Amino acid sequence: MLALTLDGRAPRLERSYPEPARGPGEALVRMRLAGICDTDLQLARGYLGFRGIPGHEFVGEVLDADDKAWVGARVVADINAGCGRCDDCTERDGHHCRERSVLGILGRNGAFAELLTLPERCLVRVPDTVTDEQAVFSEPLAAAVHVLDAIPRNLRNRARVAVLGDGKLGLLIALALAGAGLEVTAIGHHPEKLALLPPELETLLESQLHARQFDVVVEATGTARGLERALTLAVPRGTIVLKTTVHGDYSLDLSPVVINELTLVGSRCGTPAEAVALLNDTSLDPTPLIAERYSLSNAVEAFARASAPGVLKVLVEGCRTP
Amino acid sequence: MLALTLDGRAPRLERSYPEPARGPGEALVRMRLAGICDTDLQLARGYLGFRGIPGHEFVGEVLDADDKAWVGARVVADINAGCGRCDDCTERDGHHCRERSVLGILGRNGAFAELLTLPERCLVRVPDTVTDEQAVFSEPLAAAVHVLDAIPRNLRNRARVAVLGDGKLGLLIALALAGAGLEVTAIGHHPEKLALLPPELETLLESQLHARQFDVVVEATGTARGLERALTLAVPRGTIVLKTTVHGDYSLDLSPVVINELTLVGSRCGTPAEAVALLNDTSLDPTPLIAERYSLSNAVEAFARASAPGVLKVLVEGCRTP
Repeated sequence: MLALTLDGRAPRLERSYPEPARGPGEALVRMRLAGICDTDLQLARGYLGFRGIPGHEFVGEVLDADDKAWVGARVVADINAGCGRCDDCTERDGHHCRERSVLGILGRNGAFAELLTLPERCLVRVPDTVTDEQAVFSEPLAAAVHVLDAIPRNLRNRARVAVLGDGKLGLLIALALAGAGLEVTAIGHHPEKLALLPPELETLLESQLHARQFDVVVEATGTARGLERALTLAVPRGTIVLKTTVHGDYSLDLSPVVINELTLVGSRCGTPAEAVALLNDTSLDPTPLIAERYSLSNAVEAFARASAPGVLKVLVEGCRTP
Repeated sequence: MLALTLDGRAPRLERSYPEPARGPGEALVRMRLAGICDTDLQLARGYLGFRGIPGHEFVGEVLDADDKAWVGARVVADINAGCGRCDDCTERDGHHCRERSVLGILGRNGAFAELLTLPERCLVRVPDTVTDEQAVFSEPLAAAVHVLDAIPRNLRNRARVAVLGDGKLGLLIALALAGAGLEVTAIGHHPEKLALLPPELETLLESQLHARQFDVVVEATGTARGLERALTLAVPRGTIVLKTTVHGDYSLDLSPVVINELTLVGSRCGTPAEAVALLNDTSLDPTPLIAERYSLSNAVEAFARASAPGVLKVLVEGCRTP
């Protein structure tokens, strides 16, 4: 099959990559549409030493599964495939299972291919009212919605929330939190990106911030300096939600965390079923974030385009026939 | 009066420092016993550019106040003297009031002197059952008890808690959390200090830790490397309570915060009334942490002694007569 692969050097298109064999309990899925995430670009540069097919944002169609009720269904998925037996899998969501594979990131080939496999228990059915172009955002939108879990319940009704960063994830978080009824200010460097947000959201350029402070600051800048900035924007006893993973050491002054008694909460993946429900039940629409679409056979060009500064979501289309 | 003062150089004893005049709503207090904290040693080295009399751990006797019911009372105090008018003062505890003074730390002379003043609303009466030697620990014990506020309520009954650091504050935190019924493991480098804790507490040397992990890790090492260590000891979605204030930039890898979805909570001052209640109502006894006592006229020597490596709490005695 056609697949984009990484091997620590530049992304490469392979025309006869072996088709995946589904294991017991797994579904075989035909990729319909997949999105390029900054994590994919990091994997392409060697992050995690990943080898194989990347891609963890997708919508697809089930071709085969143990439970035949899945066959033909349009699906997205929880990308964390836990062991199903440990405490984390049985009592929680398995997102921290020590034996988990993660689609296109850790121990499992991903979505930039004609076909992929995933445990059936990871699948989420997409209702007809949700288009492929919306559904392909389920994974990052779930990560955006998951920010809510880090905001103290007693603050959700009255918190002034700042979202730092106007990249793909920052904009999605601003959309998701505003959709949940929070008072959101989106802060970035790019007027043209902030303009993609609905007019009811307050947007501010970094240079316009002055002495504003917020009960909750969501750090989604994708840069090491984002946390340093967030520390200056949070009120005493405020909450900072960290979405950016900065790999390796970097230098900063964490004394405001103690002096101002701040709470920092790391936030990673969310629950795609919640994202699908949001796409189905509300007017939240992530599609203005789509920058460009490429066919799978042009996936290398798609990666190059997604790497260019300021480019929002680049999508890769699956092949029409299985 | 006799007072120890700081001016950015070495601590100095002054024999005729002007006696403080109490303002409206303030009490004039004779110091009976005061404790030297690591913050005092940092102030002596120039931290915060502090000039004047340091000292924020004390027990004293009220000599005069607007409310004459205070006169003659043995007291400790909340060292944060807020403006009394802002939201933080009226709705919370004023610990983050922007106009606050902090006894012996910020804008207010402290306890290493014969006399000090504080707003009456900061005072806490010490019951007869609590000795001066116990009461002088009220401020650091309150800071230790305050760690509880950073531990999620649903975890308090069943959390495995590690306290990192066997200095004065680390030992007090271990005592306070164990006193509150938590399952505590105190971790340090000094067997002789860990041996000061009651036998029902688990103690471990750093070298004995192996792959142990904890739901809650309290970082009280007083060093920049403590947080890095804490990040390796916390379970996924665990909580790290930060007590150490490290001033200035330092370099570390914060990616585990996001990947493991950790919560970091900065924790500073507590409520001395809670500490006094604990000293009165339970068998918690901080006095084994007392290393040495000096008279106020030997306070410079007391500071030198407290600065020596491995020395626990050094106390300074007030003068017998007002």
